Amino acid sequence: MTDQQEYLPSASNSITVRFDIRNRPGMLAQVTSVIGEHGGNIGAIDIVRADEDRLIRDITINARSDDHAHNIVESVRDVDGVRVVNVSDRTFLMHLGGKLEVESKTPIRTRDQLSMAYTPGVARVSEAIHDDPVDTHRLTMKSNTVAVVTDGTAVLGLGDIGANAAIPVMEGKAQLLKEFAGVNGIPISLNTTEVDEIVETVERIAPVFGGVNLEDIGAPRCFEVERQLKERLDIPVFHDDQHGTAVVAVAALLNALKIVDKELSELKVVMVGIGAAGSAVTEMLLKMGVETVVGIDREGPVTSDRDDLGPAKERYVRMTDPDTESDTLAESMEDADVFIGLSGPDVIGPEDLKRMARDPIVFAMANPRPEIMPEVAYPHVAVMATGRSDYPNQINNVLCFPGLFKGLLNCRATDVTDEMMIAAAHAIADTIEDRSLTPDYIVPSVFDSEVVGAVASAVSDVAVDQGVARKRT
Amino acid sequence: MTDQQEYLPSASNSITVRFDIRNRPGMLAQVTSVIGEHGGNIGAIDIVRADEDRLIRDITINARSDDHAHNIVESVRDVDGVRVVNVSDRTFLMHLGGKLEVESKTPIRTRDQLSMAYTPGVARVSEAIHDDPVDTHRLTMKSNTVAVVTDGTAVLGLGDIGANAAIPVMEGKAQLLKEFAGVNGIPISLNTTEVDEIVETVERIAPVFGGVNLEDIGAPRCFEVERQLKERLDIPVFHDDQHGTAVVAVAALLNALKIVDKELSELKVVMVGIGAAGSAVTEMLLKMGVETVVGIDREGPVTSDRDDLGPAKERYVRMTDPDTESDTLAESMEDADVFIGLSGPDVIGPEDLKRMARDPIVFAMANPRPEIMPEVAYPHVAVMATGRSDYPNQINNVLCFPGLFKGLLNCRATDVTDEMMIAAAHAIADTIEDRSLTPDYIVPSVFDSEVVGAVASAVSDVAVDQGVARKRT
Repeated sequence: MTDQQEYLPSASNSITVRFDIRNRPGMLAQVTSVIGEHGGNIGAIDIVRADEDRLIRDITINARSDDHAHNIVESVRDVDGVRVVNVSDRTFLMHLGGKLEVESKTPIRTRDQLSMAYTPGVARVSEAIHDDPVDTHRLTMKSNTVAVVTDGTAVLGLGDIGANAAIPVMEGKAQLLKEFAGVNGIPISLNTTEVDEIVETVERIAPVFGGVNLEDIGAPRCFEVERQLKERLDIPVFHDDQHGTAVVAVAALLNALKIVDKELSELKVVMVGIGAAGSAVTEMLLKMGVETVVGIDREGPVTSDRDDLGPAKERYVRMTDPDTESDTLAESMEDADVFIGLSGPDVIGPEDLKRMARDPIVFAMANPRPEIMPEVAYPHVAVMATGRSDYPNQINNVLCFPGLFKGLLNCRATDVTDEMMIAAAHAIADTIEDRSLTPDYIVPSVFDSEVVGAVASAVSDVAVDQGVARKRT
Repeated sequence: MTDQQEYLPSASNSITVRFDIRNRPGMLAQVTSVIGEHGGNIGAIDIVRADEDRLIRDITINARSDDHAHNIVESVRDVDGVRVVNVSDRTFLMHLGGKLEVESKTPIRTRDQLSMAYTPGVARVSEAIHDDPVDTHRLTMKSNTVAVVTDGTAVLGLGDIGANAAIPVMEGKAQLLKEFAGVNGIPISLNTTEVDEIVETVERIAPVFGGVNLEDIGAPRCFEVERQLKERLDIPVFHDDQHGTAVVAVAALLNALKIVDKELSELKVVMVGIGAAGSAVTEMLLKMGVETVVGIDREGPVTSDRDDLGPAKERYVRMTDPDTESDTLAESMEDADVFIGLSGPDVIGPEDLKRMARDPIVFAMANPRPEIMPEVAYPHVAVMATGRSDYPNQINNVLCFPGLFKGLLNCRATDVTDEMMIAAAHAIADTIEDRSLTPDYIVPSVFDSEVVGAVASAVSDVAVDQGVARKRT
């Protein structure tokens, strides 16, 4: 992790501390000023109990990190007349017992209810499905349920932390599916990292699911897992780290282009970081009419001259067919219209931005620390976006996957296609009217309630047009 | 299916019919009497709309079967002045879109909530689990979630109807887990019927689950699936068709013995039907001190003289070691204290019951039509139980599995043992006080709210005693 000074205090590092404070005027002010001096943001302050001598108070404090929270508590402990009764981490509290519940849609409190939901009534429903398997999409949870599948090898920025440690992230994804789109997500965190085993396992558990969201599976295995599953299953398979990122980045780009008044076909795009997400963004841009993309990895531009490329990057070269003589990232930035980073912290500086064409567009999406910090970039760019929620223009997958799956399930799609993803990107972009667009507002808020519906209908419509929908919506 | 006259009209075959009825005095009486004449039971009658000429009414009718419901509707159609607008099947209506919802335990409507449930806050929880995997049981849904696993080969009385058609049954099971015990159940309906593939699939998806409920997997594969999974997983694996049935049957027997004043050790038990459930009941009885069990299949008593037995039945013979010279079911019934049937309809008659010892106990559990109908058996037996809800003493697995899994999850058990099942049987039996016991009341109602808690504590207590609990409750 980089210097914590970069991060603002936030609820994600928030603690509730129970203090036993001497009951004298001015004591609370003393406590809160120590918290403030040490950089903590105070949220709620509650009185739990009071008597003549002592006040028991719960104070919620947003910190920048675990260590920061610890330091704040230690500093308050030094205040005379204050005792720390107990510190609870709000994020951990929220995770106790898990974040999901599987609920019955109907109560089962009478014999009649039992006889319809379970035996003997359920037998008639099973027989109907046996007679016509398409009814599985109508009479079971398959109609509204997505498997959220990981092997725990590329979890957030944490890497290969394993199937158990990945569960809270998959539960979070399932929460978002339900809270944003009303879709059921079921975490499937796999005890294997073999491509063949992942594929056959998902294939075997598929009957109960109407779609598969692949998540946090490391490259290049994720490409093969996705390819094989799409081929074998008759339900949509979507790798969010690739295509979700691509859809939202493209949505942001569509709006940024309106601001600088450029067309996709005339762009030179420099793409730094060509793993799963970078490749998917590139592929989508090319599909939409961009002609010039220069992909760059740690060694520099990825071209046919290089002899150190694996199969995935060789495929990347064939796809982009870059006509470039530049040997470095810096040279590649010459006359670029768009920089997209999905790599790591601080890979470019102001001098690189100065080489770009007029009105540079910079999407520095590395998390938590972007390829260039917005405050450094702002003087040199027309539009800037990041993956972070504490700057404008957050490129966040949650704008895509809930609505996308809602749309796929609504029409009982058999597949998710490039055309659907392009339609989803346009739908996201179009939720901001042209007259509302500003350089600081090219991406709708993740809490914009219009997005899900817009994405869902766009996706269903394309599915019906392409003949991959089992049902008209 | 046997003659429908045997079954009472029930909600499981219930329809709501919208009638357009001429608005004249006496018309409703005419409609309801036609329904009654044809054997339909009327539930609710609602007026949807009324004008001078016509009344639109919804009438809910419980029938005995699909065909019966159809006949009733056709008969009413013949009444002059009545039009059938629409017929809806209440059981199918309840199944539309599936019966389960996956819900987020916390709303995600603000950036703070998002940052704790998902990125960036969730990363700290994932790291904590990576540092200490035991935290998976504390900080994820594993703490309260059971996989309900089937391969669709032995679903209810329907047999091998496949993974899709089995889903409504698995959803029903998950509903019962939540409604009765607050436990999350997730249907896993497998696209394979190979033992090795079932085992490896469940092993791979195990991280997110705190227990596995095997369901409706055909014998003899179910035995091997259970054995291998118990060996490989560090969470409890329970095949409900075997052990759930055994626990509840034994609970019923414990109470029946109090009524007839006999001891387990002195019993002669005749066990007809020695598939998955029959074997499990036998094993549990022997473990609890019963000395004489005669197992009987279609060919007669299962003894070491037989040369037509497969491995499962050979194991059964070794287990029971029957000292019998009888060649037929009828001969085996001589002096039997207990008859337990898990086979098919009408395999015994009154003459068989007359051969039994004093105060015969008969559990005729074949579904839907028992080995002998209660009204036929009553004159000859002391205690009678079936699997049906429309007679007294229903032996229903729902008395066991919700509380059992609640107990296993509460103490984070690594296994489910015979001793826990015996404790569960005693707990179920003991929810009826001795002074309340009658021949018609040896099994608590499935809606008796005391049962779940009693079973759960009994199971946890034994788990702690046996050292297979990760946590004291």
